[in-house]
Amino acid sequence: MLHNLPTVTKLIKLLQQVPYLASKNLFRVTSYFLQMDQKHLQQFCTILQEANQQVLHCSVCFVWKERDRQCTFCDNHRRIQDLVCVVESWHDMLAIEKTGAYDGVYHVLTGVICPLDGIGPDDLTIEPLVARVVTHNVTEIILATNQTPEGEATATYIAKKIKDKNIKISCLARGIPVGSSLESIDRVTVYKAIAERRPF
Amino acid sequence: MLHNLPTVTKLIKLLQQVPYLASKNLFRVTSYFLQMDQKHLQQFCTILQEANQQVLHCSVCFVWKERDRQCTFCDNHRRIQDLVCVVESWHDMLAIEKTGAYDGVYHVLTGVICPLDGIGPDDLTIEPLVARVVTHNVTEIILATNQTPEGEATATYIAKKIKDKNIKISCLARGIPVGSSLESIDRVTVYKAIAERRPF
Repeated sequence: MLHNLPTVTKLIKLLQQVPYLASKNLFRVTSYFLQMDQKHLQQFCTILQEANQQVLHCSVCFVWKERDRQCTFCDNHRRIQDLVCVVESWHDMLAIEKTGAYDGVYHVLTGVICPLDGIGPDDLTIEPLVARVVTHNVTEIILATNQTPEGEATATYIAKKIKDKNIKISCLARGIPVGSSLESIDRVTVYKAIAERRPF
Repeated sequence: MLHNLPTVTKLIKLLQQVPYLASKNLFRVTSYFLQMDQKHLQQFCTILQEANQQVLHCSVCFVWKERDRQCTFCDNHRRIQDLVCVVESWHDMLAIEKTGAYDGVYHVLTGVICPLDGIGPDDLTIEPLVARVVTHNVTEIILATNQTPEGEATATYIAKKIKDKNIKISCLARGIPVGSSLESIDRVTVYKAIAERRPF
């Protein structure tokens, strides 16, 4: 089918590495790039490279920041600097930011501990987090990793590391999502919602 | 949220134009490009541009072909050259090729007639198709546009254009998908399956 199109095959292999391009869409995206006019594609590549060079992790909270600008959180006096929410990734952070309910700062782990993928604690930003707790006089840490085995293990690891620092450690509430009926929710979530019930 | 990240905003706007990058994945894809190492990104851009320049539409069937290679279909004597399947796009063609059941050639329309989007018959490859019917002694045309209002309208338009050429015009069978139960299929499909029933 693609045996006579080596350049297209190369492009498809490249696009397959981009996360979340489901295989059905892969060919559509390939077509999109093939029929893009040359000037537009040149511009596309320039912006990609510019962003790649211009954007880096903040050295304190590891959220993306522009090379010549201040960090949106660490250098913002309107955010509570001693309340740190620990998230796995930048897009998890965006999900919390969208609520508008949080006015502390963040700490992006850039992943989770996953021995099967060869990712240990040293590959994440846990050491800088522990150091930050001391140097920045943090009073509360919210562990907001996802409820996967890896996410939970990472949270437990971090909690252990900072438990002697004598600060408050909390995590996100678990329970029935807003607007859902009990009937449609899985057993474990209902179990957790009962076990961790709150005063009305 | 992104007000302090103009370069990232620019990149996100660019990626939003790529089809089928749902908004949830957009931030993950953005992260992917931001943390890609510079050498790898350079390679990514090179392959994109190479493919864009190297690959063009076959001038007869409008399937993608490499600049310095023959067309997979038109120049392949194993394919029946007088049986032409008309499809909307390259990826629709791939869907038919995957079945392995078709050994004719194709004609890619590169879209459908859609007045709301300003796409008329002249923006598609309908004129070349009509010319091809004559010059290539085509004996049968299979209209395999999708069953959308636009797809059906395009098929009707093409059928009208070539009906005086005295060739067989067919279209894909409509009915119950293989493996489905009647109960789970929509009413219109069941209706069509009864109306267009075949001998057992």
